[in-house]
This record gives sequence, structure tokens and C-alpha cells, in this order.
Amino acid sequence: MSALLESYAAGRWFRAADDGEPLLDAATEEEVARISSRGLDVAAMVRHAKDTGGPALRSLTFHERAGLLKTLAKHLLEHKDELYALSARTGATSRDTWVDVDGGIGTLFSYASKGVRELPNDTVILDGGLEHLGKGGTFLGQHLYTSKPGVAVQINAFNFPVWGMLEKLAPAFLAGLPTIVKPASQTAYLTELAVRRIIESGILPEGTLQLVAGSAGGLLDELTVQDSVDFTGSAHTAGILRRHPNVLDGGVVLGVEADSLNCSILGPDVRPDDPEFGLFVKGVVTEMTVKAGQKCTAIRRVIVPSATAGQVVEALAARLAEVTVGDPRDPDVRMGPLASLSQRDEVRKAVEALRAGTEVVVGDPGKASPFERGAFMAPLVLRARPGVTEPHEVEPFGPVATVLGYDGVEEAVALAARGRGSLVASVATHDPRVARSIVLGLAPWHGRVLVLDRDDAKESTGHGSPLPVLVHGGPGRAGGGEELGGVRGVMHHMQRTAVQGSPDQLTAITGRWTTGAARAESGVHPFRKSLAELRIGDTIASEKRTVSRADIDHFSEFTGDTFYAHTDEEAAARNPLFGGIVAHGYLVVSLAAGLFVDPDPGPVLANFGVDALRFLTPVKAGDAIDVTLTVKQITPRVGADYGEVRWDAVVSNQEGKPVATYDVLTLVAKTW
Amino acid sequence: MSALLESYAAGRWFRAADDGEPLLDAATEEEVARISSRGLDVAAMVRHAKDTGGPALRSLTFHERAGLLKTLAKHLLEHKDELYALSARTGATSRDTWVDVDGGIGTLFSYASKGVRELPNDTVILDGGLEHLGKGGTFLGQHLYTSKPGVAVQINAFNFPVWGMLEKLAPAFLAGLPTIVKPASQTAYLTELAVRRIIESGILPEGTLQLVAGSAGGLLDELTVQDSVDFTGSAHTAGILRRHPNVLDGGVVLGVEADSLNCSILGPDVRPDDPEFGLFVKGVVTEMTVKAGQKCTAIRRVIVPSATAGQVVEALAARLAEVTVGDPRDPDVRMGPLASLSQRDEVRKAVEALRAGTEVVVGDPGKASPFERGAFMAPLVLRARPGVTEPHEVEPFGPVATVLGYDGVEEAVALAARGRGSLVASVATHDPRVARSIVLGLAPWHGRVLVLDRDDAKESTGHGSPLPVLVHGGPGRAGGGEELGGVRGVMHHMQRTAVQGSPDQLTAITGRWTTGAARAESGVHPFRKSLAELRIGDTIASEKRTVSRADIDHFSEFTGDTFYAHTDEEAAARNPLFGGIVAHGYLVVSLAAGLFVDPDPGPVLANFGVDALRFLTPVKAGDAIDVTLTVKQITPRVGADYGEVRWDAVVSNQEGKPVATYDVLTLVAKTW
Repeated sequence: MSALLESYAAGRWFRAADDGEPLLDAATEEEVARISSRGLDVAAMVRHAKDTGGPALRSLTFHERAGLLKTLAKHLLEHKDELYALSARTGATSRDTWVDVDGGIGTLFSYASKGVRELPNDTVILDGGLEHLGKGGTFLGQHLYTSKPGVAVQINAFNFPVWGMLEKLAPAFLAGLPTIVKPASQTAYLTELAVRRIIESGILPEGTLQLVAGSAGGLLDELTVQDSVDFTGSAHTAGILRRHPNVLDGGVVLGVEADSLNCSILGPDVRPDDPEFGLFVKGVVTEMTVKAGQKCTAIRRVIVPSATAGQVVEALAARLAEVTVGDPRDPDVRMGPLASLSQRDEVRKAVEALRAGTEVVVGDPGKASPFERGAFMAPLVLRARPGVTEPHEVEPFGPVATVLGYDGVEEAVALAARGRGSLVASVATHDPRVARSIVLGLAPWHGRVLVLDRDDAKESTGHGSPLPVLVHGGPGRAGGGEELGGVRGVMHHMQRTAVQGSPDQLTAITGRWTTGAARAESGVHPFRKSLAELRIGDTIASEKRTVSRADIDHFSEFTGDTFYAHTDEEAAARNPLFGGIVAHGYLVVSLAAGLFVDPDPGPVLANFGVDALRFLTPVKAGDAIDVTLTVKQITPRVGADYGEVRWDAVVSNQEGKPVATYDVLTLVAKTW
Repeated sequence: MSALLESYAAGRWFRAADDGEPLLDAATEEEVARISSRGLDVAAMVRHAKDTGGPALRSLTFHERAGLLKTLAKHLLEHKDELYALSARTGATSRDTWVDVDGGIGTLFSYASKGVRELPNDTVILDGGLEHLGKGGTFLGQHLYTSKPGVAVQINAFNFPVWGMLEKLAPAFLAGLPTIVKPASQTAYLTELAVRRIIESGILPEGTLQLVAGSAGGLLDELTVQDSVDFTGSAHTAGILRRHPNVLDGGVVLGVEADSLNCSILGPDVRPDDPEFGLFVKGVVTEMTVKAGQKCTAIRRVIVPSATAGQVVEALAARLAEVTVGDPRDPDVRMGPLASLSQRDEVRKAVEALRAGTEVVVGDPGKASPFERGAFMAPLVLRARPGVTEPHEVEPFGPVATVLGYDGVEEAVALAARGRGSLVASVATHDPRVARSIVLGLAPWHGRVLVLDRDDAKESTGHGSPLPVLVHGGPGRAGGGEELGGVRGVMHHMQRTAVQGSPDQLTAITGRWTTGAARAESGVHPFRKSLAELRIGDTIASEKRTVSRADIDHFSEFTGDTFYAHTDEEAAARNPLFGGIVAHGYLVVSLAAGLFVDPDPGPVLANFGVDALRFLTPVKAGDAIDVTLTVKQITPRVGADYGEVRWDAVVSNQEGKPVATYDVLTLVAKTW
């Protein structure tokens, strides 16, 4: 008897009291492991996540959490070979494994990078700008995202035992939510191995990752407001989860990413000898054969111009004939078995249902597998009769696709929409007008749309690959959920709140200086303060400088910016906005820098950018301007000897009217 | 018998075949109207919305839709008196009516303004920046929002018959979704009047607003993917809606904004003679008495330091003693009746349930109403015994609040959280540390948090007022939904999709020039083209200009920006980023302007700003720079003779390396 998988629960590895159920190798039908969660205390797991994991995680900043994800990604890379070897037992070829294991590790790297580059080195995320709620400027609103004091439960499908866990873990971890993973039993041994390597590394704070190997019985009963369940799998199971009382009435947030009837459309502009024709056919075959078609994002519906359908079928047949089906460990094999015999039964049932409205044009559903053992199945292409409903309703979760003919772009979009919401669609076209009209037609029905053409084909990651930086999910039948999408996936796990208050209170709450809040003007120029010494609100209010006509003339000549509004009195007088010669905007900000800068070497290393510069009032000859520069946000960089300081800059004229506002971005040394 | 309310369905006013049920004046119990939807063809309404309203709406740009909302707001302002008069019959005082009618119209104005200022003059919204998906720059990702080809059904509560409709209509309308309104029967006569005035104005495209007066029986059965239901009301009814098969399995998106046990917290720093004490007490009394406490956002739990609880109760008693209850038409009356006798029964039942864990400290629940008729009820303050659960579970939807004592900020937050998710909380404190710790503790449990202090009190809109620019909704018990929040509320009704493709295809699809896409360099400088003539991708590639050490020296002297990196060879050499004298960033962009500008009067009126300026590579003496300026986005202004043009600017050095990238924002005349 093979080993019993263990759960990782409340800080220790748990072994069920019984012998569990066997899990079989997809190709050899040998027993790989056994699985049971009998006796597992799921309530203790939820408590452990909330009492230990959550607080530990939320005491770290986003940058610190991102750093841990990066360390974890590197650690898993070191154990890749071990994961690869075990992955073959799920039926995965090495290409399939690459998608699962390297795809999962890549997602960690991506979130580590996004977390540092796009989130603050803080525990709160600001959303959007300030809202001025009163004319006096004493009452403002700011949206922000905070971490929930809950737990993220992930319930994953069998097809990506590593990626499925990591793509959900990364954004939840960044969001400050501890995770409990419940993988599908069939391939849970691979998830268990990955979790084992993660736990023994000690990289993640204890309690931030736990594993249920086996049934999750009762886990949802333990969840409440602030907790979430993110499910990937069938619409049927999603329906059961949606009916749980804690989801219906208990405030548990359920996210669903369900298999859908994704389509790929061949543009009406594409002729069989165009590069897009070959790219389209190749894409369909790839999606049918990677993971033996067991992907939520695989192409189920092949929507092509009616006139070209025959040629598409021929091309598919030719390409599929080259696909070798067999032992996934054999490097010459292109497609392995399905995950299990019962999965193959499901696919065969779906094919039977599809046959009512279709005919088989490639492959033979009646043909027995050439192998004695294993869940092997050869690819099948069906062709739909016009107007039938089956291809829009029945999902064969295997190497099966149906070709549907269309006439005109509108019908192509209408056919796609009959899937009632999908994860992804693709369009092969080189015509930008076709691309625009099909993509905008498909968009309301899809979470992702790929345009494939000769220009992007070389770099394209393909129809079926969710990417960490793009949202993954779709409306309707696809479950209505949204995962990934870079920081969008992080925000998804946090609570958005509108905070209202005075500028001083908002500054204290958000950690970012808010227009109207107190400024601190000390005798020391803030450019003389290191990152460690600088405080939000530190300010330098400059002297005044009068801008003369000579300055404007000189600047025109020096820079070559002789735009008439700066040089031609008569023409400038006719300009509806200026009514006379005005100083260049670039002159104003250049002079402002001259007014606020502290020249000597000091902790400020460089001005690396400017954001949201707006010229509000024209500056005319004789106007005297000054500038107020205030520390708005301080972002120390983990592992670097500097950080970023964002300064609020307001240039005003002699009447106190703002003439330009912007943010100045500088790098400042941590110590000096 | 009073008039039977009519539904507005499929382009005509529909009158039910029966006499309907009577709706009574809240104060006088006289019949105001009768209501029935018997015989109403809701399926035809859904079809009409999708076939007529949706397409008409989606043929307009966001700016055009915003313009219609503004026109509509002005139109309703003209009919305010009529709405005011009828509103009194719901039990509303003139202050209550102001919240409902003026609040609703204000929401239209706010969305009209946000739609023009924050959305493009287009039908697609881009979300976030480009994602580079390959190193070669040929494969990119862009998230965008598109309109759903569905219908937005709103099911509203009885308490805000005008605001409730308009606050949901405005963002859905901007999003391109036609609306079907189903108001609560009790006050549907006021909604019907508002809809009548809207329809007869002809301002909104036919099919974009329909009304169900009476039961919505069967309406949900007609909905499918792309349709949404936004419900405001009780958690009980929300539970029924969540169980509808089309919501559970049919892809209908349900948003819920349910009554919640909102709290207000008196900070531990506040002493009875501090201004915040009085502001806190005033806030509680306002929330208890506006709409007779029949507000989803009203304060149900008054959480105060245990030591101060007695003084709070005394102050509440004193202030409540001044509240005159009576006929809402009487200008001296501060609080009118509840909406109906059955509503009063509900509140009385809730008070009975609360009394198990509380004692009555202000008011007398046994005391009969001083009026012979009408749903009048005097305010009640209860005080909770320590540790009881009732105040966190039972919601009296009327002028009733419970005082709870706390010790320490942590307990205050923990008590608030026991409400299991609320729409809004408020905190009275003048201590920024208290504000930060309480607000960040409350945030995961609330959609909105107000900090009240002496600084914002004068302008504060108060605890109970949702604002169009801030999100309204809350997790858990509050329903888990989100409405309003400016453009967030618009996006809420749209589908987010990640689009992948080549730069040229993304440019075509999004209508915004994408890095790497084709540029069009014609003989004509693009500054010579009017808005009507300019095309996305129009480009000017400048000559080169060598930046000399003399230029840098001169710029330092001229502007006063004598930062050592531009002036002191030795110190600059020690700078870790520069390693020698570098040109000022402002010098680089000033020279770039000199390189790209076309000096003569023309359609370009002004440069009004710069976005996302980043200095990527230092420019040193002897470097030769050039600039490429490309039309990125064109935004014609409705009703103005100009529009905005966003230009992509890239300054490069002699090696072709980008030294600075930014967006230049200009105003350009529509014709020239």
C-alpha cells in the first residue's frame, strides 16, 4: 500500500486514522498515494489561520510580503525536478508540467515583482484620489483597501495541482490573508509535495498556509464574514458551494472560476494561405492537446467562416495526425492520458451528448484506446450542424472541440455569446477593424480575449494561458469570478472603504500627506534630511521670484520653444485661454525647482520623475511665483539603502492662486 | 378610491386590470394611491430594455450619456415642489424630503460631472496601464471595461423613493445599461411621479428606464447572464433573492445593500467638554430622527467609553427632548411618523427583542402615540448590559439606538465588528492616533467610515449620508455590495476584460495609441491639424539637439537650480546614480518642447499638463537628444469648440536610448 497523504493543519502534519482511498497513476493505473482527511479538525485550522497566520502576515508590509514570495519562488525552483517527476503520474507530459510547475513559480515571481513596484511599502492601499466633499477643504474623502481579518480557502481543480495553489496563494498572501488549500483528491499528492517543501523551508509565517488532503467536510461551516472561498472547478460543484448557508446568509465571499465553453474565432479576412490561418489551427490543436484538453481555458468551440470550415477541418486533421498520444514520461509523446478513467468516462458522455447536433470529422469516438491501461483518449473534432444548441451547452473536459460555421462578424459574436459567458476567447485576424469589432463584441462575455496575428504570434503566450498580470475569470457560466490581474487580484481579497475626515485625520490614517493638512516647516531644509529623518508633512516654502518678460523671451530663445503664446504679443492676445504673452509651463516648473532645491550634496540623490502636473493659471510677465514642497509619501525600499519620496508641489502667484500643481518624485538615502 | 399607480413598460403606461391595494398616508392614514401590477408583461419589459433601450444607450459616448443625466437633473429640479408635496405623505419632513429628492438630483449632477471629467468621450474604459507580455514588445495586454448587453433591475426600499431610484440609475445609465425600477410598494407613488416626469420629458432614450409599480412577480425569471439585480432592503429579502435559480446558476449578478447595525464610536480621548462630545451626541440624535431612523445607514449602536456612558445618555436625553414629533408638513416638527403602521409594529417587535439585554434609558416603549392616527413613535435609547448579544443582532428600523460601553480602543473595534459587517461607522475624536487605530480597525468591516472632529464638523455631511463620489455598501450583514463611489459605480456595471494582442491591434481596439504601434509621419506637423483632422498615431519626430555643458551651466544659473549634480563635477561624480555632471530633468523636457513645438498660431491652444514623467537615463554634456511626439488619445469636449489631445512623448539620446518618457496634455481646437 502506498503512503497516506497528510494534511498540514494548525502547525503540524496530520495523518488520518484510516487507510484512505487510493489515487492512481493516470497512465499506469498504479497506486501513487492514498488520501483521507478523517479526523481532521478543520475548525482548529480556521482558528490557527486567524489567530496565528493572519496577524503574522498583517504585521508585514506589502513589500515584505512580496520579498517572501520571491524567496519562496526561488526555493521551489530548487525542488523543480522532484515536482516534475511526480507530476508525470498525473498524466502530464513535460510540456504540461511546465505549465503547472513553472507557471506556478512564475506567478510567485510576478506577484513578488508587482507587490514591490505597484504597492506601497505599507499595509494599506489607497484607491484613487482625494474627493473634496466641501468647498472649504476641511472635509475630504479617500478610498482605501485594508486587509481582512479572515482566511482565504481555496478549492482547486485536479488539472493544475501546483499552479492552482500558487496562483491563488500569491495574491491572497500579498493581501494579508492566510490560506487553507483544498486540492482535488485525484492529484493532491503533487500539491502535498509542494506544500511540504514550502512548510519545511520555513519561509512563510506559520499559519499562512495550511493543507487539507482529502475531503474538506465541514470547512465551510467554520467560515464567516471576512472569510472567502475561491473555487476552481465545475459549474455543478460551484452551484453546491453557492447554496451553502454561510455563503447565502453568512457573508462568506465565494469566488468561482468554472470551466466554460471558450471559443476561438477565425476572422472573415483570413484566407487559408495567410499566416493567421496556420496560427489559428495551431492554437486550436495546442489547446486540444495540452493537458489532454483538461483546461478550463481550452478551446471547445472553433468558430470559423462557413466557407472556410472545410479547410479548417482538413488542417486540424493534418496537424492532429502528428500528435503522439502515450506515456507522458516519453519525450516523443505530445499528449498524455486524461487524469483518471472516471474523467475519461465523463468526456465520453459529453461526446455522446454532443453528437446529437454534430458529426465527427476528425478521430473516432468508438475506437478503443491502443493502451491496455491508463485513461488515454485520442483527440476528436466534431462539426456542428447550423443552429444546434449542444456545442453551447455541453463541455467535454478533454481533447475534443467542435467546429461551427458563421456568416458575418455579427453571427460570430452571437455564436460566442451563446456560451453564456466564458473565461477566454481568441480571434485570429490581421485586420484591425475586424479585431475591434469582434473583440468589443466578445468583451462583455469574456474575462480575457486574445488577438492572434503574424505580429504577436512569436511572443504570444497563447489562448489557454492565464497570466499573472491579467485577470482570469469570466461572467456567467465561467463563474463570475476574477483572479490574478496583478494588483487587482490583491485588492480582490481586501475590503474597500471610503474614509471621510479632515485633512489632518486623513493624513494620520492613510500615512500620506493630504491637501490641507498641517505642514511642518522647521529651520532645516527637508532636502537635508535622510529618509529616516523625513516625516510626512515636512515642508519647504520658497522665496518669491518675479518672472520677467526677459525671462520668457530668453527661455524661448534658449530652448527653441518659440510657441506664439510666449513670443508674439498680438497672436497671444487672440488666444482664448491666455489673452497675452504667458510664461512657458516648463519655465514655471524649472524656476520652481530653482526655488525649492537645496544645492549641496545630501540625502536627496535624484529627481526621477514628475506626476500629474497641471498648469492651472497662466503666469505672465511681472507675476511673482513661489513654491511649497511638502513630503507626501515615503517609501523605503527593502534591501536598498534608499527609498522614494513623493513631494506635493504647489506653485502659486503673488495673489496666492495656484499656477501649477504636481508631485515631484525623488530618491532619498536612508541615512546620511 | 384613489388613483391606481401605473407601470411604465415597453414604451407605454400600463394600468393593471384590478383595483390594487391601498397605500396610506403615513401620518393621516388617508389613502394616497392604489397599487397593482397584475397583468404586467415583465418579459416584454426585459426585451424592450435589451432591444430598444440598451442599443440606444450604448450608441452614445460616456460624455453624451453624462450630458443627458445633467439635463435630467435640471428637469427634475423644475418639478421639485410637486415631488416635495407628495413626499410629505410618506411621513417625510422637509428635511427628510431634502435628503431624498435633492439628494437624488444631486447624485445625477455628480455623475454627470464625473462622467465628463473622469471617463473618456468613448464607449470603452481602459483600466490600468499596458502590460508588456513579451520582451520584444510585440505582445501586450490591456484591461478594459465594456458595456453589458443586459438590463439593470433595481429593487428599492421604501425609505428613499426618489434617491433610491436615481442613485442606482445614474451609474447604470453611464455604464450603458437600461434600467427597470421596482420600488417598494409603500411609497411607490412618489417614485411613479418622478418616473412620469422623467418619461414625459423625453430626455432619456426610450427603453432606458421602465417602472414596475406593484409586485415584480416573475421579473427575475426573465433575467440571464449580462443582467443584474441591485437590491436595497432587508437581509431577509436579500436571502430570498440570493436563492433565485437565475442568481444561483444563471449568471445574474446580484448586488445587495442591506440594513446593518451601524455604529458610532466616541473616542477615548474625548471629554464631555470637548467639541467632539457635542458633535458625537448631535450626530447620534440626527441619525435617530432623520426619516424617523428609517435609514440603512442610521446609527443603531452607540459605542462609548464605559466611564462616559452615563454622560452620553444624559446628553442624548437632553437633545432628544427637544425633538418635536408630529405632522411632517408642520415646519416646527423635527421627526415625522414611520412609513406605516406595520413598520411601527416591526420596530416595536425589535425593541421587545432588544430589551432582553438592555434597559430603556430615554423614552418609554410602553407609552402610546399622542396622535390618534399615523405611524408615530417617540425616540428610544437603550443601554446594553456588558457582553450581551442582542444589540449586535437585532435591528430596530426606526428611532431607536443602543448605548454600549467599552474599555480601550481594541474593545471598541471588537464591539463594532460584532455587527458582522456594516455600511458605515463613525468615530468622534480629535486625536490622530486614535483615529488611525480605530479607522483601520473598522475598515475591513465597513464600506464607509467617518471621522468627526472640530475641524471637519462644519462641512461634514454626517454619518448617515451616502455620497455619490464615495462607495456605499458594506461586507457581510450589510450585503456585500458596492454602489456609487463615482466612476467605481459605473465600472461595477461593466465587464472587465484583459485584451492581448500586438500594439497595432490594441491601438485599433482601444482607440488609444499603444507603445510599439505604427506611427504616421506625414509632411504636416500635427500641431497644424485640428481635432477633426488629427488621427491616433500622428507623429512628429524631431531633429536632434546636442546638450552642452554650457547649456547645463546656463540653465543652473538662469533657474537657480544649482543642485550639485548639475554644477559640482566632483560631488556629481560621487552620486551613485549619475557619476558626473548631468543635465537637469527640467532642462531636458524644456529642450524637448523646443524640439517638437510648432510656433505659429494654430489649432493647439495650450499645454495644460504633463503626466507620468520619468527620467530613465541621465543626459550628460555632449549627448544629443531628440523627441518623438505621437497622438495617443483624442477627447472631443461635447458642447465646446475644443478637445483634449494626449501625446506620447519619448526623448531619446544619440544611442536611441529613452532618457525621458511622459504624456503631454494639450487643448486643441475642433476646427481651424
